[in-house]
Amino acid sequence: MLHGHSFIAGKQAADSARTFLAKSPLDGSELAPAFHEATATEVDAAVCAAEDAFEIYRRVDALARADFLDVIANEIVALGDTLIQRAHLESGLPVDRLTGERTRTCSQLKAFGALVREGSWVDARIDHANPDRTPVPKPDMRRMLVPLGPIVVMGASNFPLAFSTAGGDTASALAAGCTVVMKAHGSHPGTAELVATAIYRAIEKCGLPAGVFSMLHGAGSVVAQALVKHPLVRGLGFTGSERAGRALFDAAAARPEPIPVFAEMGSLNPVVILPNALKERGAAIAAGLKNSFTMGVGQFCTKPGLVLALGGPDFDAFAQAFREQVQSAAPATMLNRAICDSFFSGVDRVQSVKGVTVLAEAVADADPAKTQGEPVAFTTDAETFILNHELREEIFGPFTLLVVARTVTELLAAARAFRGQLTATIHAAGSDLADFADLVSALERRSGRVVVNAFPTGVEVCPSMQHGGPYPSSTDSRFTSVGTAAILRWARPVSWQGFPADALPVELRDENPRGIMRTVNGILTR
Amino acid sequence: MLHGHSFIAGKQAADSARTFLAKSPLDGSELAPAFHEATATEVDAAVCAAEDAFEIYRRVDALARADFLDVIANEIVALGDTLIQRAHLESGLPVDRLTGERTRTCSQLKAFGALVREGSWVDARIDHANPDRTPVPKPDMRRMLVPLGPIVVMGASNFPLAFSTAGGDTASALAAGCTVVMKAHGSHPGTAELVATAIYRAIEKCGLPAGVFSMLHGAGSVVAQALVKHPLVRGLGFTGSERAGRALFDAAAARPEPIPVFAEMGSLNPVVILPNALKERGAAIAAGLKNSFTMGVGQFCTKPGLVLALGGPDFDAFAQAFREQVQSAAPATMLNRAICDSFFSGVDRVQSVKGVTVLAEAVADADPAKTQGEPVAFTTDAETFILNHELREEIFGPFTLLVVARTVTELLAAARAFRGQLTATIHAAGSDLADFADLVSALERRSGRVVVNAFPTGVEVCPSMQHGGPYPSSTDSRFTSVGTAAILRWARPVSWQGFPADALPVELRDENPRGIMRTVNGILTR
Repeated sequence: MLHGHSFIAGKQAADSARTFLAKSPLDGSELAPAFHEATATEVDAAVCAAEDAFEIYRRVDALARADFLDVIANEIVALGDTLIQRAHLESGLPVDRLTGERTRTCSQLKAFGALVREGSWVDARIDHANPDRTPVPKPDMRRMLVPLGPIVVMGASNFPLAFSTAGGDTASALAAGCTVVMKAHGSHPGTAELVATAIYRAIEKCGLPAGVFSMLHGAGSVVAQALVKHPLVRGLGFTGSERAGRALFDAAAARPEPIPVFAEMGSLNPVVILPNALKERGAAIAAGLKNSFTMGVGQFCTKPGLVLALGGPDFDAFAQAFREQVQSAAPATMLNRAICDSFFSGVDRVQSVKGVTVLAEAVADADPAKTQGEPVAFTTDAETFILNHELREEIFGPFTLLVVARTVTELLAAARAFRGQLTATIHAAGSDLADFADLVSALERRSGRVVVNAFPTGVEVCPSMQHGGPYPSSTDSRFTSVGTAAILRWARPVSWQGFPADALPVELRDENPRGIMRTVNGILTR
Repeated sequence: MLHGHSFIAGKQAADSARTFLAKSPLDGSELAPAFHEATATEVDAAVCAAEDAFEIYRRVDALARADFLDVIANEIVALGDTLIQRAHLESGLPVDRLTGERTRTCSQLKAFGALVREGSWVDARIDHANPDRTPVPKPDMRRMLVPLGPIVVMGASNFPLAFSTAGGDTASALAAGCTVVMKAHGSHPGTAELVATAIYRAIEKCGLPAGVFSMLHGAGSVVAQALVKHPLVRGLGFTGSERAGRALFDAAAARPEPIPVFAEMGSLNPVVILPNALKERGAAIAAGLKNSFTMGVGQFCTKPGLVLALGGPDFDAFAQAFREQVQSAAPATMLNRAICDSFFSGVDRVQSVKGVTVLAEAVADADPAKTQGEPVAFTTDAETFILNHELREEIFGPFTLLVVARTVTELLAAARAFRGQLTATIHAAGSDLADFADLVSALERRSGRVVVNAFPTGVEVCPSMQHGGPYPSSTDSRFTSVGTAAILRWARPVSWQGFPADALPVELRDENPRGIMRTVNGILTR
């Protein structure tokens, strides 16, 4: 049923003879059909179509945009089992997980639909004129957010649905009023093709121009680099490795007209276990930690890749409990061969650091034919952690490193050595949070989300979610890629001065026909 | 009374033997004392002091931050005539203008004080837990904006008070809870020293750490480059030329950990005069335009450097009226010799473009001994404008270019050739705005502020002001450097998950002790 072509404004495009095949990590088999890599001409055509469509789409009523997002969600559900099965074959992710991810994808689309329908996100501000002001009259000034223009979205390997074709980046960009050119991830091009067809059904049902969305195939970085450099592109969203994200960021910054890139990249997601928590519930934390770092074969952006605690008998008991947990963990299929290879080579790299030892590994062996990763935990002391920067690099997969501090000073020094993080987690009981206020403060400075007595995996999609911390966890800590605030990446404010009412956007008219929350003469009001 | 030293956390620093003198553009005279350029060690010391102070300042109560901003304003006023006189000598700007600029500077500080005191700017969001949710319980999640860290502010040549030492960038950064290392502009170092002493008096009165603010001298780009590359710096604000702004942006993007740079740079601020307006009030527009492009000797970011209209008898009458206006305009002292030289060479460059002719110049000649610029207006046709990219570069000073389109198509094509602009102005009457909806739309896409029937100079400081458009008018059109929203450049969101109430920032506690507007379970409420 799949054709393996790119979609440019709804039309199939396959000019190139360069093709690639998706490979199932479940058994290494090649999956039909061959996918055609987009050519430079196709990249240009997709972006030009996005620019043309933007001129129409940006003026489409907000309520129509909200409906469009809802219809996309419905059309994705209508793809039924075909979508889940293809995603399973391409990503190796279990059917249950993918079914849940589909729910999340649709919830995200609908959450952005609801945000746009409610309307206050545009941060409308009105300052009325005062012709009598001296020395100069005060003009009528009104301001709100407008969409940036055509946005490039890069599919993510680890979320074939929720952070790919119609995932959070696409949903937030379309919600803002931007058009989207999507680069499908080379690991799951068939999944991308199916979701793209759902988006086009929604475009057709909603009577929108087809150029609102295009999807291009490409296995390497050529298509991505061509997209980020295209003069009509106005922003880019990415989730993936620090290396790939930085390459896109650098290309965007080097353009004659730089554009914003929100790249969500590497993160250790440190978990710090404070003394009272370690004493009171070390075994429970060990069990929770094992679940968190092996969940999804450790392939979440928020996987806890580092655990920090003070040494002593409570820690030893915790470490013993954690060792048993890890030993009982099961190897499982990773997303693709490259990620699996990179996982094992990362583990080897860490193991070769003097002062790092194996704490535990899964008793069951990984099956290379099934592209399996094997849960493993290492341990080291705080000094070794601080001195070896390679211990501060993310290893994507079911790996974590226990770092033992001898003193509170060492504990704090280790925390201060952390690079920017998506999340930082603290397990605390009794007076722990108060006793370690400096540590909590250090973690707040270095992360986008601080978690108490839970685990960082499981990223809630809600208004208060921040998914994006200081570099390298993201390229701009002022924005998020998860939660409704993700829309702010794709919008900029415009002020209208002295405009007659009928030439203003409806959101800025005195009568407030949309009933949105606005700042009028400095006061927030509906 | 001036000492010519940098200030590092309140202490004078003058390690370097490299000194420079401010020169008065009024008569070319050198002004005592000699100013010591900051050394690399001093740069490092200032940033380290800013980092140390940040650990304290970021936890200072918002009301205390607001008071601090108010006290700075009062201390600036207390400097009295000394400040105005030194600024007059250094910048050549008239005393009246500087007195007005001081009022604006103090109003800005107080506006940010009021914003921080009111408190809703932190965009607090609370999503309560739901332990009964399936398949997984919903955690308690809370999010608000926190300050980025030490911020570098670059003094601007054209606003020795309102966009320099305690200007909009410093005020917004301090309001956000950031500490500031300021690089004084080489043209007005004495003004900077005076204002810095006012800031230190405020720091002392408010009992804040002295490292909250430092000020370094430097005549070239060495100190600026050292600052933007310092690993502890977390952001930079700049107002000036495209060349200098881009150099800072590039250095920030090339860092191992890139940081945000908000550079407000070049802008033509096009004024489009539509047919009914041209017919009804061409002469009035000509008079207003002359005032606007010669105001402050054309040295405003928002100076209208381009005028676009359809040719014909109404345009000819307008051009004749404008010619007479320009001829009667007076030469006046520019900010410094380099800016004056650059103005005249820019005018020469434009004059050498085939198809560009002089429309009018001031009858009175500029006096080079007084560093004077001379008002001049050129004219060309739309085709020449579109074909020559050098006509789309800003010329800082009292210059403007009239572009005449033969057809509506040409008019629209010329508007679509505009690069990113801080402002775009439309003069319209009757059905003009409706008749030229495509043009209005094209201007909205290319600018941060669209003005109807007024002139772009005179930037209102209010919540609805957007001062920052698409590149090259700014490096990130999603932010503004004027108006209270300027604070958003220096803050990032953090989410707190599962925190006990007493460990949360007060803004995020259920009882809402600050009484701020918040998004609670998706609903905006106090």
